[in-house]
Amino acid sequence: MNTCAPQLLDYPKPLPSAFVPAAPVTRCRELAVGVIGPGRVGSALLDQLRAAQPRLEREGRLRLRLCGVVASKRMWLDCDDAELNGRHGGAQVWRPNDLDAFAAHVRGGTAPRDALLIDCSASDAVVSHYARWLAAGLHVVTPNKLAGSGALERWQAIRRASAASGARFRYEATVCAGLPVVQTLRDLLDTGDELVAAEGMFSGTLAWLCNRHDGSQPFSALLREAHALGYTEPDPRDDLSGMDVARKLVILAREAGWALSLDDVAVESLVPEALADLPREAFMDRLGELDAPMAARLAEARTDGGVLRHVAHLDAHGRASVRLAVLPAGHAFAHSRLTDNVVQFTTRRYCDNPLLVQGPGAGPEVTAAGIFADLLRIAESLELRA
Amino acid sequence: MNTCAPQLLDYPKPLPSAFVPAAPVTRCRELAVGVIGPGRVGSALLDQLRAAQPRLEREGRLRLRLCGVVASKRMWLDCDDAELNGRHGGAQVWRPNDLDAFAAHVRGGTAPRDALLIDCSASDAVVSHYARWLAAGLHVVTPNKLAGSGALERWQAIRRASAASGARFRYEATVCAGLPVVQTLRDLLDTGDELVAAEGMFSGTLAWLCNRHDGSQPFSALLREAHALGYTEPDPRDDLSGMDVARKLVILAREAGWALSLDDVAVESLVPEALADLPREAFMDRLGELDAPMAARLAEARTDGGVLRHVAHLDAHGRASVRLAVLPAGHAFAHSRLTDNVVQFTTRRYCDNPLLVQGPGAGPEVTAAGIFADLLRIAESLELRA
Repeated sequence: MNTCAPQLLDYPKPLPSAFVPAAPVTRCRELAVGVIGPGRVGSALLDQLRAAQPRLEREGRLRLRLCGVVASKRMWLDCDDAELNGRHGGAQVWRPNDLDAFAAHVRGGTAPRDALLIDCSASDAVVSHYARWLAAGLHVVTPNKLAGSGALERWQAIRRASAASGARFRYEATVCAGLPVVQTLRDLLDTGDELVAAEGMFSGTLAWLCNRHDGSQPFSALLREAHALGYTEPDPRDDLSGMDVARKLVILAREAGWALSLDDVAVESLVPEALADLPREAFMDRLGELDAPMAARLAEARTDGGVLRHVAHLDAHGRASVRLAVLPAGHAFAHSRLTDNVVQFTTRRYCDNPLLVQGPGAGPEVTAAGIFADLLRIAESLELRA
Repeated sequence: MNTCAPQLLDYPKPLPSAFVPAAPVTRCRELAVGVIGPGRVGSALLDQLRAAQPRLEREGRLRLRLCGVVASKRMWLDCDDAELNGRHGGAQVWRPNDLDAFAAHVRGGTAPRDALLIDCSASDAVVSHYARWLAAGLHVVTPNKLAGSGALERWQAIRRASAASGARFRYEATVCAGLPVVQTLRDLLDTGDELVAAEGMFSGTLAWLCNRHDGSQPFSALLREAHALGYTEPDPRDDLSGMDVARKLVILAREAGWALSLDDVAVESLVPEALADLPREAFMDRLGELDAPMAARLAEARTDGGVLRHVAHLDAHGRASVRLAVLPAGHAFAHSRLTDNVVQFTTRRYCDNPLLVQGPGAGPEVTAAGIFADLLRIAESLELRA
């Protein structure tokens, strides 16, 4: 084997662009894209799409066309720039928010095109449009958890619309952002494997708190630190309640074929009943009341020689729970890195050792990348256009 | 939250088949499949395909048609059964092995169809056909590492043929079997992320040996145990040489855009020079000669407070190495489960904490599932057929 460092330093070189020659640009897949919700994730996605556009077209893989953006109250359509370019010098023209007009514009008028709507909002109202958009042949990609974890009837209608029209509905980024979780579960099941259990730590905040909670300082001090660092939601109860984790578990449970809803998940909230309904300031003033119960849980875990972790669990019978669990010190979740998300699938094929995916499971850039990967998966299935 | 156990026991139920209605079976994707190499992996794949066929067709997702199987010396084509059904009562008729005739038959004659060849052989001769098959529009899926880690020119020709004809070439199962590794790296790069480092433990055998090697018994005793358990190749030097791990690293390096070949990888063999060329029996008799050097490496690791692991590493400059490395006790690889494969990608987006995938990375069933997932990915991009 050649171990000559200098040679390795100069060589290998990046592959020349001729390495995988671009297909004749006369035949290239083309996708019209509309983005709903230009917030932190939506903006990161727009940046990633703009940066990737020239490369994807050069490689003859995909011609991306951004047709519009919808914000909470107003929207921009590319045609406005076209029409008004002369007068406005290309400045973007915003018009009142109208989701249906937006969808119609992205899909194209007399000559409908391959079109994709990306919902980066956290809005339930937007989700209510999915089924209609999919039925009309528009693909939908989203990190919005409200479709997959909301009313079962609505989700079923969304899936039916997608199956009937052939328009694709993808939502990898709803669980652990850019980590390959939903697609990995999908592949296991589609290839005939059987899910025995899905376990995960789906909250970086709670993972950090559990990792740091070693008894050296009270839980409330750690929580205040996490809050100051911006690791928690503005109201930490939104993390401590476990509801966001439960939503992710419902999405995975439905992916596994269980007609599960949020109410079916046994969720243990870390917020004492007495503090659940207080105004935020009052709650922050009384954080100390979390210390005794959390210290007790830690002591209990240690007498068993285990560690305390916040775990979402789905079993082979579709039973779902989200709770503080005592795990053996050798458990994979016991060694997870601070703030990492982890998911592991135990199946008939992965029975002795499960399949495990771990890494940062939140943040605008990795969430946007998860959406972008879904977009590319859909683009692969588009017909080549002259 | 509803935590009523009985209700959770009875409910949720599996989703009714009407849940995601089958598309009218008049419009269903159709894929003609030919399998080369019905060995342990090939047979497991055929079992999985047969088992999944009715479900995939019922869901209106894919009509799979097995057109033939090629063994080392002979092959079976479905047309033989059709023609000779009367005389042979459906018994499979074998004819002499002819790869080109096989490919032509799977592709179909006057009316070419969407066709996929799956190479489950470990044959270099079969790989030499890939470029021609892809140029002819046949998709190719394989767990055979000889394409991605063999001659760079041949691999470039394969990629060029695929890009020019649009036929797909997929090889997820070449690295860590069914674990999502190649596609995960692909998605990171395609969405505009930049690879800083790829590290992995790609040999379950060496992972097991490193995990168990704690000084309580000599390395040779562990190696004999692994050999007796069937964890090693018949000749353990095939594991200890690190070459199989190096091949997987080359495949990932090329995926990352580096024009890398096996000779460019700095591979540290665990086989002492003096034992490299002995007959197998003679080597097995002298295993004891591995003990002193391995004990020394372990001692060295411990003085640094670290652990000894067999690690494949690719850096941001395309430098690749496979060696025994001393890792800090807190490193993710230090806690891996016995025989697990692990890979972690450090990128611009996953910089503080890398993206990690872990699990069993070998075995017929999980390898076949990796191939099957590639097949389904290709099927998604097929046009609907009446």
